[in-house]
This record gives sequence, structure tokens and C-alpha cells, in this order.
Amino acid sequence: MYNDILVKGDKLKEECGIIGIYDKGSMEIENLTYYGLIALQHRGQESAGIAVNRDGVITCYKDMGLVSEVFDDKILSLLKGDISIGHARYSTIENSFAHNAQPLLVKYRKGSIALAHNGNLVNAGALREKLEDRGMIFTTTIDSEVIAGLIARSCSNSIEEAILDTMDIIRGSYSLVIMTGDKLIGVRDKHGLRPLVMGRAGNGYVLASETCALDTIGASFIRDVRPGEIIIIDKNGMKSIQCKPAEKPACCIFEYIYFARPDSVMDGISIYQAREKAGRILAEEQPVDADVVISVPDSGTPAAIGYSLQSGIPYAIGLIKNRYIGRTFIQPSHVTREIGVALKLNPLKANIEGKRVVMVDDSIVRGTTSSKIVQALKAAGAKEVHVRGSSPVIAHSCHFGIETSNRDELVGASSILEEIREKIGADSLGYLSHDGILRSVGSTGEGFCTACFSGKYPMDISENCSKDIFGKE
Amino acid sequence: MYNDILVKGDKLKEECGIIGIYDKGSMEIENLTYYGLIALQHRGQESAGIAVNRDGVITCYKDMGLVSEVFDDKILSLLKGDISIGHARYSTIENSFAHNAQPLLVKYRKGSIALAHNGNLVNAGALREKLEDRGMIFTTTIDSEVIAGLIARSCSNSIEEAILDTMDIIRGSYSLVIMTGDKLIGVRDKHGLRPLVMGRAGNGYVLASETCALDTIGASFIRDVRPGEIIIIDKNGMKSIQCKPAEKPACCIFEYIYFARPDSVMDGISIYQAREKAGRILAEEQPVDADVVISVPDSGTPAAIGYSLQSGIPYAIGLIKNRYIGRTFIQPSHVTREIGVALKLNPLKANIEGKRVVMVDDSIVRGTTSSKIVQALKAAGAKEVHVRGSSPVIAHSCHFGIETSNRDELVGASSILEEIREKIGADSLGYLSHDGILRSVGSTGEGFCTACFSGKYPMDISENCSKDIFGKE
Amino acid sequence: MYNDILVKGDKLKEECGIIGIYDKGSMEIENLTYYGLIALQHRGQESAGIAVNRDGVITCYKDMGLVSEVFDDKILSLLKGDISIGHARYSTIENSFAHNAQPLLVKYRKGSIALAHNGNLVNAGALREKLEDRGMIFTTTIDSEVIAGLIARSCSNSIEEAILDTMDIIRGSYSLVIMTGDKLIGVRDKHGLRPLVMGRAGNGYVLASETCALDTIGASFIRDVRPGEIIIIDKNGMKSIQCKPAEKPACCIFEYIYFARPDSVMDGISIYQAREKAGRILAEEQPVDADVVISVPDSGTPAAIGYSLQSGIPYAIGLIKNRYIGRTFIQPSHVTREIGVALKLNPLKANIEGKRVVMVDDSIVRGTTSSKIVQALKAAGAKEVHVRGSSPVIAHSCHFGIETSNRDELVGASSILEEIREKIGADSLGYLSHDGILRSVGSTGEGFCTACFSGKYPMDISENCSKDIFGKE
Amino acid sequence: MYNDILVKGDKLKEECGIIGIYDKGSMEIENLTYYGLIALQHRGQESAGIAVNRDGVITCYKDMGLVSEVFDDKILSLLKGDISIGHARYSTIENSFAHNAQPLLVKYRKGSIALAHNGNLVNAGALREKLEDRGMIFTTTIDSEVIAGLIARSCSNSIEEAILDTMDIIRGSYSLVIMTGDKLIGVRDKHGLRPLVMGRAGNGYVLASETCALDTIGASFIRDVRPGEIIIIDKNGMKSIQCKPAEKPACCIFEYIYFARPDSVMDGISIYQAREKAGRILAEEQPVDADVVISVPDSGTPAAIGYSLQSGIPYAIGLIKNRYIGRTFIQPSHVTREIGVALKLNPLKANIEGKRVVMVDDSIVRGTTSSKIVQALKAAGAKEVHVRGSSPVIAHSCHFGIETSNRDELVGASSILEEIREKIGADSLGYLSHDGILRSVGSTGEGFCTACFSGKYPMDISENCSKDIFGKE
Repeated sequence: MYNDILVKGDKLKEECGIIGIYDKGSMEIENLTYYGLIALQHRGQESAGIAVNRDGVITCYKDMGLVSEVFDDKILSLLKGDISIGHARYSTIENSFAHNAQPLLVKYRKGSIALAHNGNLVNAGALREKLEDRGMIFTTTIDSEVIAGLIARSCSNSIEEAILDTMDIIRGSYSLVIMTGDKLIGVRDKHGLRPLVMGRAGNGYVLASETCALDTIGASFIRDVRPGEIIIIDKNGMKSIQCKPAEKPACCIFEYIYFARPDSVMDGISIYQAREKAGRILAEEQPVDADVVISVPDSGTPAAIGYSLQSGIPYAIGLIKNRYIGRTFIQPSHVTREIGVALKLNPLKANIEGKRVVMVDDSIVRGTTSSKIVQALKAAGAKEVHVRGSSPVIAHSCHFGIETSNRDELVGASSILEEIREKIGADSLGYLSHDGILRSVGSTGEGFCTACFSGKYPMDISENCSKDIFGKE
Repeated sequence: MYNDILVKGDKLKEECGIIGIYDKGSMEIENLTYYGLIALQHRGQESAGIAVNRDGVITCYKDMGLVSEVFDDKILSLLKGDISIGHARYSTIENSFAHNAQPLLVKYRKGSIALAHNGNLVNAGALREKLEDRGMIFTTTIDSEVIAGLIARSCSNSIEEAILDTMDIIRGSYSLVIMTGDKLIGVRDKHGLRPLVMGRAGNGYVLASETCALDTIGASFIRDVRPGEIIIIDKNGMKSIQCKPAEKPACCIFEYIYFARPDSVMDGISIYQAREKAGRILAEEQPVDADVVISVPDSGTPAAIGYSLQSGIPYAIGLIKNRYIGRTFIQPSHVTREIGVALKLNPLKANIEGKRVVMVDDSIVRGTTSSKIVQALKAAGAKEVHVRGSSPVIAHSCHFGIETSNRDELVGASSILEEIREKIGADSLGYLSHDGILRSVGSTGEGFCTACFSGKYPMDISENCSKDIFGKE
Repeated sequence: MYNDILVKGDKLKEECGIIGIYDKGSMEIENLTYYGLIALQHRGQESAGIAVNRDGVITCYKDMGLVSEVFDDKILSLLKGDISIGHARYSTIENSFAHNAQPLLVKYRKGSIALAHNGNLVNAGALREKLEDRGMIFTTTIDSEVIAGLIARSCSNSIEEAILDTMDIIRGSYSLVIMTGDKLIGVRDKHGLRPLVMGRAGNGYVLASETCALDTIGASFIRDVRPGEIIIIDKNGMKSIQCKPAEKPACCIFEYIYFARPDSVMDGISIYQAREKAGRILAEEQPVDADVVISVPDSGTPAAIGYSLQSGIPYAIGLIKNRYIGRTFIQPSHVTREIGVALKLNPLKANIEGKRVVMVDDSIVRGTTSSKIVQALKAAGAKEVHVRGSSPVIAHSCHFGIETSNRDELVGASSILEEIREKIGADSLGYLSHDGILRSVGSTGEGFCTACFSGKYPMDISENCSKDIFGKE
Repeated sequence: MYNDILVKGDKLKEECGIIGIYDKGSMEIENLTYYGLIALQHRGQESAGIAVNRDGVITCYKDMGLVSEVFDDKILSLLKGDISIGHARYSTIENSFAHNAQPLLVKYRKGSIALAHNGNLVNAGALREKLEDRGMIFTTTIDSEVIAGLIARSCSNSIEEAILDTMDIIRGSYSLVIMTGDKLIGVRDKHGLRPLVMGRAGNGYVLASETCALDTIGASFIRDVRPGEIIIIDKNGMKSIQCKPAEKPACCIFEYIYFARPDSVMDGISIYQAREKAGRILAEEQPVDADVVISVPDSGTPAAIGYSLQSGIPYAIGLIKNRYIGRTFIQPSHVTREIGVALKLNPLKANIEGKRVVMVDDSIVRGTTSSKIVQALKAAGAKEVHVRGSSPVIAHSCHFGIETSNRDELVGASSILEEIREKIGADSLGYLSHDGILRSVGSTGEGFCTACFSGKYPMDISENCSKDIFGKE
């Protein structure tokens, strides 16, 4: 079975990268936040934002665009402070509006909080409705505002209790960095669907989606924030609160397959090594007699190397990516459209011509790009092209923040492998098994959410609110 | 022996990428030229220019910056035509002025010509003086203007003869694309020091520095322009003139080591394969007992793969390059300077920690960056770091367009290997031999200029003019 | 009677300023054209364009925006040549698209022509339909393309005859500058509705909408182009052809009232003096007992001075215009909207307070701005505000290029003076009479189009084509 | 006597416009500050800055450029607050650096203060030296930092006392707006050399250099801040402290002649009326038999109107200023340089030709522009040109903030009237007398600083510090 679940692109879309820094007396917290976001840019390229806290006063700036486009020296000079949070966002086209950019800055009876969120709530719609019934006004269409609204409405004594109350009500995936007048707070959902790590920089603390952001700003890794854990950082140092009852961990498997940067380590597992291992297992499960293993750069490369190491078929670079195509690049017009692929990805003929090629990609979602690349490889003289995907076929919608359509739209849900192979134009086609992807991260079935492959969700995905959220009022 | 020949950066600097297109009736010659230059951008990032010929009238636009920065839709809309030439330039800091950007557009008694040049003349200074003595005025400081001046002054009957006369007088490296009122002309110096290839696109012809530019714009490769050959393309088709007497070919070995894009094929040799083979030979010549082979991305990767294939030590990605650092990126200030390396190149700890690492780079010129990377690898837990350069030590100045200082400044000319190793902080250090680099391109000593290693130049490198250039007047 | 004929602003909108320069060997024709357009910017601020002819090859650049926004050094450097035409355009919001910007560059069987047009055809729609029936394709929605189409389709032997044929077919207002491969041509419609003057600069000739453009670029005035005249400038000098039969001149009276710059001289009449005289006559026709005469700057000032001179009531500056409000200026939001008027126009209290004020404006079209200004003057302490318009009430649509709606929409067509006065909040209101406006330009009823006041159009304004335009084919 | 005291332009240069707003709960304090600075833009076009106070935290943004260039929606969105101060600056070329832009934001032992200054200290150099001797570090070269340093070093109990102490030590001209954590403070020097007014807007207060800024943002005028007065605005309302001993008022006469906007009222005198009266007196003192009075726009217009009213010679517009010349405007090159004057200022021939013209300007400083205008008027056919300056000849340096050179450089200090007339090319030349300029502002010799005409300074202008500034320590 294969499916074409994404209508807007050929890759699954993650929702965000987040970072938070607490460093009293830092001269350059705004720059560190900026560099940290640059390191997390692969998690979201649509909007970027930074909020800083100076002596208790929070200022927030965000806009559509890459981190390096949204911020310049002038804007950063207005973002001096002691605590900061930052956000890089991807969102579906429907919601590509500047007002949905994050961090979200809200005022409530106890002051102001800024919040940056990576993830997706299952019951945001129902909660939003209930809050609106109670008279709350929303200014964005993002889940994160529901979280902020619930925290603000909680009549508990402290921000920590307000967050615990909120975690009791919301269902879904969420890693959060929250800034109050004097605290930086990190929250990871009970299943740990989205990543969040903790580090130390100078005299301060850093929270970030991935360890690569810590490395980039010279922070040292402390540990992953645990599923269901709340981390509070203030002038008294760092404090941890564990939300109860505990749920089974279910980290999103796609972080390992595609989203995270290969130099990150997530819940103790190296992203690169998981991908290389997936490639090794793929070689066992989907062997083929061939002359060369190539990857679709850059994300397919570790699995291709693994496939090569396991199969003994030599690895070579088969496609050259042009690194000088920027955003201001002039798009090919109708006359020159056919040159579009070669502009970005050119076959390296010497490694292709007359050869039986294994082409490894991390996931083959729609097949449109795959089809064009196979065509280009054949035009460059490939004798055979064997396409291998280092993850199973996606057959179920994600409800936790990865952009998939609902299941009815999943074309591939009923396609058979042979149809897909034909569409792509490959000589053979093979995917990693469900068991294989679990083995790649060292699991025997526990600890990961693989619902997009299996349909088994780690929680109730209905919109229902399991609890009367205003019972306390 | 090691040397520190470059004071301004850690890589040798090439001077240019050039392209020329002749296509009567083309709707988008300006866009094809633009895309071709984007594909040649790796050869020069300092200035870019395009000249087009519409019905015999030549218009030229050039500026400092990347191709995608210099040109936009508005500027390109003013560059419609039937013949075009383009240029992407690197130059030393001293000459980084917009007026030295190319193409060069000159008027002379027979009309206008535009010229784009890749290379460097040995006797430009002397020729310039002689031309000035005769009253010629120069507006730039580039060699290319001397070539243009000589062509313009030649009293021969045709442009072809004027070029032949000029080739008789100038010494050095030069690949040229020249545009007259009705012709596109390509010229490659007698030794073929700089590359130039010919292709077919639609009903027209393309000349370019590398085949990757042909691939990118959908042109099919015809053949390399031969050393000493003049190619004339006009309404009558393509014509070839061979300059006499022939000289021994001496293609610049650094095109294969570093300058060219790995998907290009130059004088019949695949750049990628030459680099991979250099890596294989390096493994034979400079073996080491280690756990993993990594490369300094992106240029060191093919040799690292070759080293791995030959030695049997597995290849892995050891350094992740951040692809989101653009030109508008805010540079780290003094406070954050130390994070500069990690921002751009982060060690992939899982592949490094506790391991004996072979780090392959194409060439180790100054050692400053190498030293920082070795340090970062050790910080990431590398047990040992063995640095391997897939080319010999540079000990002699280049006189043909690669930016090296004169020999006196070559610090390394007297350094010994051990000193360099210590400076870099590597556990061992090894370079490819002179014989090895020749074997990597299939040579037994002929056909390549390796003067930067050997000091044996393929021609007289004195400034003297071997001939009275104005004898005919 | 008063009317509110304009829905989009408070001033009538003119359609264009045009310029053409013929100067073989000019080093800076592109700059002179640019400066000339800057001097004509008051005639149109929506788009700007320049076309130049270099050795017979025409290049055109145009975009939305002010002349100084559309052109910069880089763009102008690509517009070198010997002949040029330029255009500054105003258009209604419906047609505010870049593709309607001028000059228009068209290719036809005899070569290329570029054309810039000031005016409006009455029968453009019918002609467009006929041309489309014959298979012509249009790329813009502007009248000017119909003129270009007719010239291109004419099978006459020369461009001059083609223009004569076209003038026979089109009805309406048009001043044109046309550039062919080797000629600059100026055309003024048979009634001379739109202005066009001729001057000499260096060794060349200049055609322009107004004399102020000649003054600005240092050209000396030769004479006005005559109604129905074609001026051809080429290497043989200047030649005049008079279109026959002659029609009665009917220059647009609004050029004198509002459109032209006060330092221009049009058909022998100084714009400033016409306006001052209108003010004098207004003082006779609409006297009032008052302490001070002020103007609505800048266009009302000459008439206010005239009113003062005639009435003996001293003239003073009553409203200060802020000259630092640029286009990038941040518009007041809803909170600060009320400060909008004061930002742009602040009453000079010392000249207003406790005084009976005569406020002179050139024309009072909608009354919205007038009403706000009267309110501001009263708030500044004016005892009485007497509004005087130095032109009659507009009661009829213009069909010759001034943006008015069709007559049904003319609110004021049925309003009575008292209603308007009340709306404006003035203590008294008076307009110049129809006879008065004619006297201001020295006419006794002949020579001017005053149809917007009188409803008497100088030609048939139906869409019908009086002639079979394709009879010759 | 005439002099050529300015080397960099033809007009005297003022140093600044300042504004301060206190409005708790204001939604748009940043926009009001912006609009207020736009209204004060005529006082300084070189740099602009705004500092805001939100909940006690001060943020400051400033840069080189016009107010509308420095600020945009994005920057203003980061400048929300309850108290604000703003500054528009002119400075000499030597000091045109961004770091000299204001407001100045300094931290000291009691917190942070932001300060904006209009004026110039006489003893800044000596004070700076003394402060440096005591170990203070300066980051700018502006006087204002000396003031800030003195306030910060004062060991008094309150900011008010610190300011009083500072006023005791500094000598020169200064109007200041100062912002602390919870206060807005206005200060005017003991002589009132520079203006400062106070107004009410909404629930808050406004301080500004001129009343036109109050009008623009809808604030109502309360009164002028008095010479030597300190105004403190905080949550308790407004409080006034009078510095002792009082000095004789000496308002700068050039505010009335040239600097201030004509719609402003300064110390009870309307700027427009002062200028008109100066023109009337000029007509009495320097009569001439002529046909028309024209002004050099815009600053000469009120005096020209006055000259006309007094002399009975009709006033007319004689020079048209092009309003579309922006900063991005392409400057004429050497070829087109001669058209530079006409581009900006075109003679209105109809009012000039064949006439004896009186040309009134506010002040004739260098004569270069005057000379070009007289030449243009003659070229336009003026029979005679009589130049009249509505202020006396400047023969002495200003020490209070107007850019003049020191007296030795005052070329004109020894010129005789006839020489100047000849240089300008005028048929006659006349200036207003010293007595005349005093009469224009209703003075009989008291209350104004006219040192630039008379050499009589209102205070000791030596650099000496009359007091041991650190006596208290």
C-alpha cells in the first residue's frame, strides 16, 4: 500500500522549532535566541518570532519568513533582555498569516505570558468553543491560543498549578516554552510526542526542540525534558514537576525518520544512527542486486549510507544539489519550466551511467518528485533504478501536528505497491517494514507513536473533552 | 612541507565562471544565461554580469554580489536578445570593485565587443604598459581589458584574425567568451589551463566553463573546446579554428581537486570520480588504523568516500553544515564569536565520540579552519583525529589565476609536516603524493599543470613579451 | 448646482504627462527624460515609463510608482540611446495595473514602435471590437493600444500616412509621442484638447506636455504643436504635417484651472496668470466683506492672490502643508485618524483667529476635504469662512480623459448651491461663472472645451465609428 | 557687510526638534511621537529617534535619516509604552554618525534616563574634560552626554535636584526632554534660547519644541515653558520648579526669522506674523521702485507678502519648487549639472519677464544660491532684480547651536555691501536693520539674542567653568 496523503508538497510538514533561554545579565540573549532558531530552521520556514523579558516587561516580534529574513540588527537591538523564547513555524497554507506566527503574547489578570508551542491539540476545537461560550475572545486560529487561554483562566494560585490544570484538560502533542514576568517554563506533553531538551549556557539555562540548537549556541546538554514534565527556571534555579498520572511515552517516529537534524540526539537516540540503522535494515528487508547506492539529498543520505554498509554495494553521490538557489531566485517560467529539476538537483552521470542504481529516500509520500528524479536518472543513463524508502507507507492521518489530510483523502490508502512503482517509473520499489522502523530506534514496540503507519493512536483522538474544564469555577 | 599561502581565507580562490549562448529567436536567453550562471556560481561569488545582443546592439549589466542578488525580474526584462554572455567572478579583495566586474563591453573602430574571461595572463602588466605607451586608456585593472585592447588594436581583417594575433602575444591562462555584433566566439588558451565546453540547446549553441551549466539549462554536451581552439558561432552555424603552433596541454589540476562541481565532466574526466580516486589512492599512500572516515563538507566528501571504499573503514557524516545561513545572517559579535564554527559546522557526536576518526579534506591550505574543526571533533569526544588531504602540499605560487601570494610569502614553503600537524592539533597528518594526484586523473605526468605542487610551470612565467606586439603597425 | 462627481478623491484626475527627446550623440538622454518626467510628475503619479532607441533597437521599462521610485541608477544605466520617450500616468483604480503603464512597445510588420499617450478616445471601445473581429490581440485595456493597433494595421507606405489614416478614424483627445526605429514623432489631436509643446535642447529636439519640462532640462521653447499637427523629427531635422480638414480648437479648460504647473505656458497663455485672473474675476463676481484671503495650497494660491489683488482684502498664508509626509509615511490608524488632516494641513491660527476668512480653492469637486478644512479653520477661531471656487460647478461628464463618472452618478447635477454650502459648513459659497472662466483665459467663447461646465462637447461623443476603418483592406 | 559663514550649505542649520509625551494607558504613544516628530522635521533631517517607557523599562531606537525613513510599522510596534520622548536632529557633517543620534539612553546608579536635547553648551568641552578626569567614559561626541553625565553624577536626593545642580554648572542653550522610570521632565535654559512648549493631549501631557507639533497630534496648547523652568510630569500630574537666580530672557531671533514653522507661536509671538512684519519693515527701510515682489520659497514667502503689503507692489509667485524631488532622486551628473537649479526651482516667466523684480529671502548667508537664482530670473527676462533680505547681515559666530564657523572664517565679516551685490549679480541689495528685526518681534532691544548680528552675547561664551563642579563630592 502506498499513499499520496499530502497535497501541498512531497514531504511531511512539521509544525515548529522552539527555544527558551534564561540568563540574567546576558549581554546577547537576543542573538543567542536568533542563532538557536537558525539551528532549528529546518523545523519551520514560514514564520519566526522572538519574545524577550527585560526587568519583567515582555516585548515580542514576529513575522512571516526565515529567521534571517525576519530579524536584522535593528530589530534585534530592540529585543534586549534576561529571558527569551523563540519560535520557527511551519503551517499549512490555509493558516499562513502573520497573526498566527508565534510566540503568542497574552495578558491576563496575573500579568503577561509569552508562549511558543510545537505540536497540535486533538481537542482544541471543542475547548475553543467552550472558552468562547464563556466570553473569551481569540485573535488567532492556532491551538496555542487555546492553551494560553486555559492557563489564563485557571484560578489556581500559581502558574505551575495553572499549567498542571491545563495539561489535565488538553489532549494532543505539545512541547511548550513559556515566559512569565520572572520565569522560563518548559512543558512536554504526557506522551512526549514532541521533543524538548534542556541545556546549560553560561550562568543560565536553555530549553530547545533539539540538541543541535544547544551545540550551536555553545550550551551543554543536561537531559531531555521528560514526557509530562514541567521545568521551571527562575532566580532560584531549575525545578521539575511531574504531571500525574504518567502516560506511556510515544515519541513521534517521524522525528527520527525525517524531521530532526541528523546531529541531534533525541531521548537518548542519535538521529543519524537511527537513520543509518533504518538503511541497514532496509537493505536486509528489501535487497536488490545493484552497482551503486545513492541518496536523495540531503535527508536520505544517512539511510543510503546504511544501505550501502549492510549490502556491500558501494555508496556514491548520485545527485548534486545546487546550494545557490535562494528565495529571491527567479522561478523558471513556462518556457523554461522543464529545466526546474536540473536547476535544483542534477544527476552525477559518472556514478549513474550504465549502472543499476539503488536510490534511497527517507519517505516517499506523493511520488511526484520521486518520479521526476527517476526520469532524470534514466536520462543520465541508469540501467535500472531501484527505489527504496527507509520508512513504511503512510496510511493514516496524523493528529499530532504533522500535516496530513484526513483518511478519506489518503489516495494511497488503497493503492497497491505495483501501482506506485509504475507511477514512479522505478524498476523496483521497496519500503521499510513497521517492525524495521521500530528496530531502527531500538524499540520492540513500545515508546514511539507510529500511528501514521499502523493507525494505532496513543490516545483518544476524538474532539471530546473528557472533563468539565470549568468545573472549578 | 606545508604552506599558508592564502592570507584571506582557507581555500584557494578561482577567478570565474563563464557562459555564452547563441540562439536566434530565443524567448528567454536572459533567463537561460541567469540559470547557467547560477550553476557556475561556485566558481565566483563576488560579482556577476550578463551582456546581451539584440539586433546587433549590445547591452551589459553587472554588479557586485551573487547572481541571484545582482539580477531580478526587472533587470532581466531589460536584457532580451539573441546572443548573450555571462560571468560570475571571484577576485582578490584589492580588486573588489564593481568596475572590475565582467563582462567587459568595449567599443572599437569595427564596432562593439563584449568579453568574459576566466584566467590570468602572465604578461598582462607589460602588455598594458606597451598599450598605454601607444595611448590606450584603461578603465579597469583586470587582465581581460588588455585582451580586449589587443583585439581592438589588431589591424587584421576579421575578428578571428584579431583573436589569433592576440593569442600570439598573450601568455597565461584564458578561457574566453566573446560577443560581437553578430557572433558568439569561444577561446581556450593554448595549454587549456582553464576549462570550456560546448553544447547544443534548442536551435542554438552554448559555451560554458563546466558541463553542469549545460545540464542545468537542458543543453546537450557536444565536446570540450580544445586547447588553442577558437569556436565561432554565427548565423552560418559553428566553425572551429586551431591556433598554431600547438602547445602541450596542461589543464589546471585544481579544477579536479576543488574548483569544479562534482557533477561536471572536464576533458573527458568526471570530477567526482577523480576525487573519489584521489581518496582511494590517499588511503593506499596514507593508511591509518581508524574507526570511521568523515569529510569536511561539501568539497571533501567524494575523496572521503574513496578513502572509505579503499580502506574498508566505514564512511559516515561527521559534520553537519547549516544550510540556512544566508548573506543577511547576523555575524556573531565579540561576545558570541566562539560559537561561530558551531553555527556553520556542527560535529555529529554519535559518529565521533570514542572513535578514531579519519577526517578527509580536499586541500589544507592555511590550517586555521582545520585546526578549529579538529578541536571541535576532539570536544565531541573523538579519541584520535587523523587529518588527510587529498592533494599534495602547495609550495609554489600559481600564475594562472588562482589566488596565491608570491613565493616569499609562502610560509609553509619551509615548514615541515610535523609543524603543521602540531598546529592543526591532529594525531596524524598525511597528504596525497604528486604521483598520486596525477594517477587520480589518469595521467602519468602529461596533460596537467601541477606547478603549485612541483614548481614546474608549463610556460615562461616572466612578464616579458616575447614579441614586438606592434610590429605590424 | 454642485456635484460630487468623483468617488475616489477630491480632485479631478488627469491622465498623463508625456515627453520625447531626439538627440543623436546625447550622453544622457535617459537622465534628461527622467528629469523631464519629474517635472511632469504632477500630471500622473501612478506609473512611469521610459523607452529608448539605441541604433534602432528599442528598450522599454515601466512600473507602478513615482518616477523617482520606478527608476534608479541601475535601471537608467540600461536605457542609453539616441531617441527616447517617457510617460507618467494617472489612471482610475480599476485599471491600476502595471501592464497598463506606458510607453507601449509594439512590433508590427514594419518594425517596432513605442508610443506614449495623454488623452482619451471616445470611440476606443468600438474600434477595439472591430480590430478584435479582424483577429488583433490586445494585452492592455488602454486606449493607446487601439491607436497603436490602427497605426500598425494601416497599409500605407509610411508611418506618417499611417498616423494620418489613424487620426481620421479615432475621435477624442490625444497628445502622442511616438518613436520608431529612426524617428521621434509628436501628434496632437485635431481639437488640441491635450497640450504638447516643442523645444530645442543641444543639437536635438524635445516634445513635452508642458513648458516646465523644457525649462527643467534646459531646453528652449520653440512653439506649441498645433491642433491636428504631426511633427516628425529624424536625422533630416524637423518636419510638420497638418492633418485635414482642420477642426475648431478646443483646449481643455481644466489644464488652466488645475492640471498644469503654474510656471507652464500653454498655447500662449501663462497658467499662473490665467489662474490669477480667474481669482480677480471671482472677486468681482463673488465679492464678500472679509479680513483676509487665504488659499488651499498649493493649487488654489494663484487665484487667491488674484482675489486679494482685485478685492483689496490682504492675502495671507492660512494653511501650512507638511512637506515631509512621504509615501512611506505611516497612515494614522483608527485611534489617531482624527489627526489626519492636521498632519497634512495645519491652520495658521494667527491669520485666522477672529477673522472673516475668504478661502479660495481652484475647484470644489466633492466637498469632503473642503468640509474638513472649514471645520479646522473654525476650530482655529475663524469668525466666518467664505468659500470661493475659481471655476464653475462641474455638472457634466468629461469624455476626453478626466476621470468623471457618467452623468447619472453626478450627485451635484441636481444639488442646489445652498445644499452644498451647508454640507461644507461655509458661511457663504461662490463659484466663478462660465463666462468668468472663459474671460480668465482671454476667450469670448471660442477655443476651449468647457463641456464639463456647459455640456457642449466639441465633437460627437458617441461610440460610433464614423467610417469603415478597414475600407482600404 | 555680508558674510559667507557657512561652508556646507546656504542656510543656517538648527540642531534639533524635541518632543515628550506622558500618557498612561495611551494605545498609540509611539505613533503620536512619530507624528509629532514629522511635524518638527524641518528642525533636523539627519537623524531621528524615539525612546519609550513601558512599566519602567526604557527602550530606545534611533538611526540616521528622516523620521519617515527611520521608523516603520515594525519598529514602532516594538516601541509601545506610557511615556515617550523623541528627537529629530541636524548636525554638522563631522558628527554625522549614528551614535550621535538622540535620544541618549544612560544608566546610572539610580536607574535609567533617556534625554533629548535641542541646543548647544558653551562649556561642554571643559566639563567633559573634568568628567573624564574623574573617570567618566563617553560614547558620543555630543553635548547632551555631558548633561546626562552631570545629572547622573549629582549626588542629590532627587532627579529634580540633580537637574537644578546641573543647570547651575552648564552654560549655553538647551531645551531638554528627559524620561526617567516614572517621569517626563522638560527643561528650558535660563535665557530661553531654545523654545519649548507644553500641551495637553487626552489624559496626558505633551512637551514639544513648537506648537505646530501640538496642533498636529491634536494636543491643546497650555503655555510656553519658561526660561529656567523645570516641568515634572508624573502620576501626580504636572509640577513646575523655577531655577534661580533668573536670567534675562534671550530667545534666539533666528527661530523667528527662519527655523520655526510659520504656523507655530513662540513665546506669544506668531512666527508668520513676525516674518510678515519683518517684510513690512524691510519695505520701509529698503524701498525700491519695482513691478512685482516675489519670494524664494518656502521660507521667504511671509516676508515677501509683508513687503508687498507695505510697499503696494503686487506679490506674485516667481519661482516654482518641484515637490517630487525625493531623497532617492538621481542627482544630476557633470553633464547635466547645469540643470540642477531648474530641476528644483523654476522661474515663473510670466511674472518675471520685462519686470523690475523684488526678490525677498529670509537671510542671504553665502550668496551661492542667491546668485544662481538671480541669474535664472535674468534669463527669464527680469529687467531688474532687487534682492532684499528680511534679516540683518550675519557677522558673528553663534555659540548656541546654530552652525556657524568661528569668526576668523567669516568671509563676509569684512565684505562691503557693494561687493556682495556684485557677487550675487543683483541690481540692488538691501537687508533689514538690527532695529528692524527687533521691531518685527515687538521688541525694543530686550528679550532676544541677536548676537549673530550684534556680537553681544547674553552670557559669557568662554569655555571656563565658573564653578567647581565637583565641589560637593
